[in-house]
Amino acid sequence: MQPLDQLRVVLVNTRNPLNIGAAARAMHNFGAHDLRLVAPYKVAYEEARSAVQAGDILQNAKNFERLADAVADCTLVVGTTALRHRELQHSLRPIEYGGQIIRKRLSGGRVAILFGSEKFGLSNDDMSYCHWLTQIGTEGSMNLGQAVAVCLYEITRRPVTGKPEARLGAPAQDLERLTELLLHALERSGYLHTPSAETKIRRLVRRLNLPAHDAEVWHGIFRQILWKIEQNEQ
Amino acid sequence: MQPLDQLRVVLVNTRNPLNIGAAARAMHNFGAHDLRLVAPYKVAYEEARSAVQAGDILQNAKNFERLADAVADCTLVVGTTALRHRELQHSLRPIEYGGQIIRKRLSGGRVAILFGSEKFGLSNDDMSYCHWLTQIGTEGSMNLGQAVAVCLYEITRRPVTGKPEARLGAPAQDLERLTELLLHALERSGYLHTPSAETKIRRLVRRLNLPAHDAEVWHGIFRQILWKIEQNEQ
Repeated sequence: MQPLDQLRVVLVNTRNPLNIGAAARAMHNFGAHDLRLVAPYKVAYEEARSAVQAGDILQNAKNFERLADAVADCTLVVGTTALRHRELQHSLRPIEYGGQIIRKRLSGGRVAILFGSEKFGLSNDDMSYCHWLTQIGTEGSMNLGQAVAVCLYEITRRPVTGKPEARLGAPAQDLERLTELLLHALERSGYLHTPSAETKIRRLVRRLNLPAHDAEVWHGIFRQILWKIEQNEQ
Repeated sequence: MQPLDQLRVVLVNTRNPLNIGAAARAMHNFGAHDLRLVAPYKVAYEEARSAVQAGDILQNAKNFERLADAVADCTLVVGTTALRHRELQHSLRPIEYGGQIIRKRLSGGRVAILFGSEKFGLSNDDMSYCHWLTQIGTEGSMNLGQAVAVCLYEITRRPVTGKPEARLGAPAQDLERLTELLLHALERSGYLHTPSAETKIRRLVRRLNLPAHDAEVWHGIFRQILWKIEQNEQ
């Protein structure tokens, strides 16, 4: 089973067909597919479904008159809100934390995440169907499609464990060959004046932290430059 | 200073005015305000700026002909890409990890995050100005405004807990000066044979990830080498 097979994205009273389409696209991006619409503006719903790019998610979206029916099969119902000041009757969890809970709960049952209308958000009545609320910590309210994208991103977010880079560093002997070559070119160019300069250059090359392949390329570059300098002097 | 004061969001070749507006709204939500447009479709730019809701971010957006100018004052330039299969010349970091690095680097200098056109993304040439690339791990490419929202969300996701990196990266304009100098020396040395070589060298220099001071030292090194080559030829 895919991670978001058990997730239901529920849009309540959505007005703008572009937003319904944008939410569906975000769902596709993050691997969710069960879209539920509660009392959307009729025109918005029809337009969104008939859009050229409307994929499976929009075609299979279910339309409900009442929120209660849209979330009936879910074991956890989470509302999203941009409100900070209105006195909320629910516990409010930042999405960084709420997303983790949703992710865990998805392994044991269906979870609904609710997004209210563009203008008013979820009503108090809508919220009364929620176990708790979650919030993206932003200045002002977000665009609906963007809010869906950020929530799904957080729910599917892969925690970073160490550096995921497979970059292969150049062996010390290659760095030393490169250093020798560079020192040689600098000596011929009159750049080296003090005995300590050699050490400085050696450190400078080490700080580049070159991957193996790049070390080779730089080696070729300095060999060519040195050849040119020496050829000129003959 | 606010966390994202040093961030520049750079939209390259954007076609749709609604996407420019959506990116600006996401920036407002997450506290970023410096929007830079590189060669946007003229109509898109004008429409976006004249939109009723166009706020300060759009009004103050700067328009550039060349990407190099748009990122000239940045010490870290990060490109976004949806590509998985194309062979990339850059290291590619998932946004979960890339966002952390950007957050740290913002405390020491300006960082640019680049988003390509809706249809084609960033070109190879665009990418050659980047230190590295980052990716949101999705199925298919994201809507532009949603991609901006997710990236900014990740960058602001948690307050910095570890030590912010004290290392001061070299501004892009210094890296470009260094690249020009190196290209010049290589041309004189007979190293450059193909038109694509210039792009390769530009990427090679960006991958060095030079601190500001080291960039200066390398600049001095190549200036001296070039001087020697030219002096010999007189």
